[in-house]
Amino acid sequence: MQPKNISNIRFSACEDSKYIKFKRMLFTENGKERSWDIIEAHDSVAALLYHTQKDAFVIVKQFRPAVFLKERNRNTEHLKTEIGYTFELCAGITDKDKPLNVIMQEEILEECGYNIPLENITQIAEFYSSVGFAGSKQTLFFATLDESYRQNLGGGVDDENIEVVFIPKAEAYDFILDSAFPKTSGIMFAFLWFFRNKI
Amino acid sequence: MQPKNISNIRFSACEDSKYIKFKRMLFTENGKERSWDIIEAHDSVAALLYHTQKDAFVIVKQFRPAVFLKERNRNTEHLKTEIGYTFELCAGITDKDKPLNVIMQEEILEECGYNIPLENITQIAEFYSSVGFAGSKQTLFFATLDESYRQNLGGGVDDENIEVVFIPKAEAYDFILDSAFPKTSGIMFAFLWFFRNKI
Repeated sequence: MQPKNISNIRFSACEDSKYIKFKRMLFTENGKERSWDIIEAHDSVAALLYHTQKDAFVIVKQFRPAVFLKERNRNTEHLKTEIGYTFELCAGITDKDKPLNVIMQEEILEECGYNIPLENITQIAEFYSSVGFAGSKQTLFFATLDESYRQNLGGGVDDENIEVVFIPKAEAYDFILDSAFPKTSGIMFAFLWFFRNKI
Repeated sequence: MQPKNISNIRFSACEDSKYIKFKRMLFTENGKERSWDIIEAHDSVAALLYHTQKDAFVIVKQFRPAVFLKERNRNTEHLKTEIGYTFELCAGITDKDKPLNVIMQEEILEECGYNIPLENITQIAEFYSSVGFAGSKQTLFFATLDESYRQNLGGGVDDENIEVVFIPKAEAYDFILDSAFPKTSGIMFAFLWFFRNKI
């Protein structure tokens, strides 16, 4: 399925990016000269959100150009979504000079529309992604919520087009193992963490 | 702790990389012109390896330049390893024209030293990492093994310096939640998957 809201796709060279810096690191390891190409990208925060009234996880779905670039050359007939879209935890890059839990709180409001008190947002883990070339660190939080925290419909700010998706807890395990729903490993870990700790 | 085997660290510009391609994608989303900076990196395979005699997971530890670049500017006193090293599933990029399970089999032998029959290597999940800028897909496998499969000591090929680490199953849950051991979300998901499915 081609992405229905996306058109006029072009690629250009990218000499200078605000978000990604390209570097080559040279070093000596055990007396041997080595080199490694890396990128420097922002760290991020993400949150597992559990909606008590719906008995469901609140996640987001959005168009990811990098995933589209990969999938357009593959057989994607099995996908249960349009190509280039992924299912993810509510997340954001940590490019502001604020505590991580405050950035997380703002992202939850912007993307999902819930205004959660800081004391309800607890850190549960940290991990690195794409260690081979990027090594961005993600700090993972957990929060429960319900419709009493609803402030708006979410969807992101500026030109973000983020769809809020509810995954019923009873379907969550099948969801994470179903590769027809492209997703991150963060969401897969987070759901299993919940099953082990919260029920 | 500074990395003990690594010295003479320098950075240079990286105009052209064999491993990472830098692109800018331009597109129209819901009638609005957007642009997104992305990199095109290889997809990968990874395996959760469970050693029946040791009752332990077999993972690897290695120096990751991109993680070092991040950590050198941080307070890393709490880390239980030298900076720049991460704990990961045995993994490799899929840059060869071979089936994924064959590439996985080769990586297990090269990195960990065990020669596992293909029929013992089963696929359990797929996920994307760094969807914001990379969108590399990782296919996750599972295999059990014991010392009868041992062919060499592992450690990687060419100039790789990969340390094989055994994480006793009884310590695995504390390990994945302990941020003093830098690690990937893939390992965190895989351990929890095992706890849910195999014991």
